[in-house]
Amino acid sequence: MLVIGERINASNRSVGEAIARKDSELVANLAKAQAEAGADYIDVNAGASKGSGHSEMDAIEWLVEVVQTATDKPLAIDSESPDVIEAALRKYRGEKVMINSVTAEKSRLDSIGPLAARHQARLVALSMGEDGIPDTAEKRLAACEIIMTHLIKLGMPAEHVFFDPLVLPISVDPSQGLVTLKTLEQIKSRYPAAKTVMGLSNISFGLPERKLINRNFLVMAAYAGLDAAILDPLDAKMMSLTRVADMLTGKDPMCRGYLRAHRSGRIVG
Amino acid sequence: MLVIGERINASNRSVGEAIARKDSELVANLAKAQAEAGADYIDVNAGASKGSGHSEMDAIEWLVEVVQTATDKPLAIDSESPDVIEAALRKYRGEKVMINSVTAEKSRLDSIGPLAARHQARLVALSMGEDGIPDTAEKRLAACEIIMTHLIKLGMPAEHVFFDPLVLPISVDPSQGLVTLKTLEQIKSRYPAAKTVMGLSNISFGLPERKLINRNFLVMAAYAGLDAAILDPLDAKMMSLTRVADMLTGKDPMCRGYLRAHRSGRIVG
Repeated sequence: MLVIGERINASNRSVGEAIARKDSELVANLAKAQAEAGADYIDVNAGASKGSGHSEMDAIEWLVEVVQTATDKPLAIDSESPDVIEAALRKYRGEKVMINSVTAEKSRLDSIGPLAARHQARLVALSMGEDGIPDTAEKRLAACEIIMTHLIKLGMPAEHVFFDPLVLPISVDPSQGLVTLKTLEQIKSRYPAAKTVMGLSNISFGLPERKLINRNFLVMAAYAGLDAAILDPLDAKMMSLTRVADMLTGKDPMCRGYLRAHRSGRIVG
Repeated sequence: MLVIGERINASNRSVGEAIARKDSELVANLAKAQAEAGADYIDVNAGASKGSGHSEMDAIEWLVEVVQTATDKPLAIDSESPDVIEAALRKYRGEKVMINSVTAEKSRLDSIGPLAARHQARLVALSMGEDGIPDTAEKRLAACEIIMTHLIKLGMPAEHVFFDPLVLPISVDPSQGLVTLKTLEQIKSRYPAAKTVMGLSNISFGLPERKLINRNFLVMAAYAGLDAAILDPLDAKMMSLTRVADMLTGKDPMCRGYLRAHRSGRIVG
C-alpha cells in the first residue's frame, strides 16, 4: 500500500497557524516524521489559509520549498486551483510528483489534465462530475470513463492515473461502504493499469470510534484493490494495518515487510 | 456475522481437564460467557480428550448436557466421528443444531451427510477431499461441488450448508490469504443460497502478533462473503470487528447494531 501522508494541510489548525507565521520548523518536522513513519508521498495542501490573510499561492510555494528541504519523498500537490498547482510545480525539484486532484468536470479536465501530462505527474482523479459525489457505483464509473478518455488523449500513461472511488458516510446511507468498494473493484477491472487511491475518514462521519471504522475500511479496501491511501502516517495502528493488509493480499513476499516492521516495533495491535 | 464460539474445545487444556474431572461449572460458565458476549452458536469439541482416559463419546454427551443447561443458544457439534456426532445429537433437545464437519471424502459424506439431513442440521463442509487441504481455489471448489451434489441428493436445503474455504498459513505461502478469499467469493457466487464459515487462526501461524492478523483477515473475509466465523467471542476486539464489518458491508441497517454495541461498551478499538 502506497501511503500518502495527509498531515501538512492548512485546514489543520496548527499547520494553518504555522503557515501564517512562516514556522518552517513545524512543517519540516511534520514532513520528516511522516517520511520516517513510512509515508511514500507527502501531501501539501494550503487551501484553508485564505482566511489567514495569506494567499493559497504564496502558501503552497512556501510549503513546497520547506518540505523539500526536510525530505526527499515525492510531494502530492493538493489544490482545487490549477494556478496554485502550477505554482507549486514550478518550485518542485523532485521526481514522481503527484497532483491532487482532477474530476470529470470539463473545466478541471481542461486545466489540470494538460498540466499533469506536461509534468509527467501522477494525477488523483475523483470519480465525480459536475453534480458532486454520485451515490451509485455506476455513476462514479461513468465519471471515471470520461476522465480516462480525456487523459489518454492528452498522452498520459494509464499507470499515472490514481482513481479515487470516493467515500460517503455510512451513518447517512448504510450501503455506501459497499458502493465505494464495488466502485474500487470495477475501476481495477476496467483499467487494470491505473491505480486507485482514497481517503478514509468520510466513511465514519457521525459515528463513535471513528478511527476503528476507518482502519477496518482500509483493510476491506485493500482487498477490493486499493493501491494507495491518504492517511495519517503518525497513526501507528493505521500504519500497522497497511502492512498487515499487504501481507494478507499477497503483496509482501515471505512476509518480509511485516516481520521487519515488527522487529522495529512498528506493528501495533 | 454469525459467531460460533470456539472456547469449549477439549484441546484447550483447561477444558480438557474440566472434562476429565466432570467440572460442569467451568464448562457451563464458558457457555454462558460466550452467549453473553454475543455468540450465536456454541461449539462443543471433545476430540482431544482421548489421552485423558475418557472416551470422546462419553465426553461429548456430557458436554452437550452441561451446555444445554447453561444456555439456549444452539450447539455446533464438532467431531470427526459420525458415531460421536450421532451420540451428541441424541442428547440435544434444541433446534438449529450445527454439525462440524463433512469433507468431500466419500466415507464422511456417506456417514455424516445422511445424519445431517435426517436431523435437519446445519452442516459445516470443508472444501477438501481425500488428499488434505488443496493449495488452490480451483481444487477447493471442486471439493465443494462434490459435497453440494451429494448433499442436495440427500435432500438437504442449500442454506443449511456452511462451506469452509479453509485457511493455510501465509508464513508458508504468501498467496494463501488470497486463495482463501477467492475461494470464498467463488463459493458465494456458485452457491448463492449456501452459507460460508471459517476459523481464522491458521492464517497467522508462525508470525508475531497473530491476533492482529486474524482480526484483519476476518474483516477482509467479511467483505469477500463470509457469513459465519468460528472464533473466541470473549476476544472483545474480535467481536467489535464483527460489528464493524457488518456495518461496512451494509448488513447493519442505520448502524443500529454498532451503535447499540457501542452504548453497552462493546466496541473496543
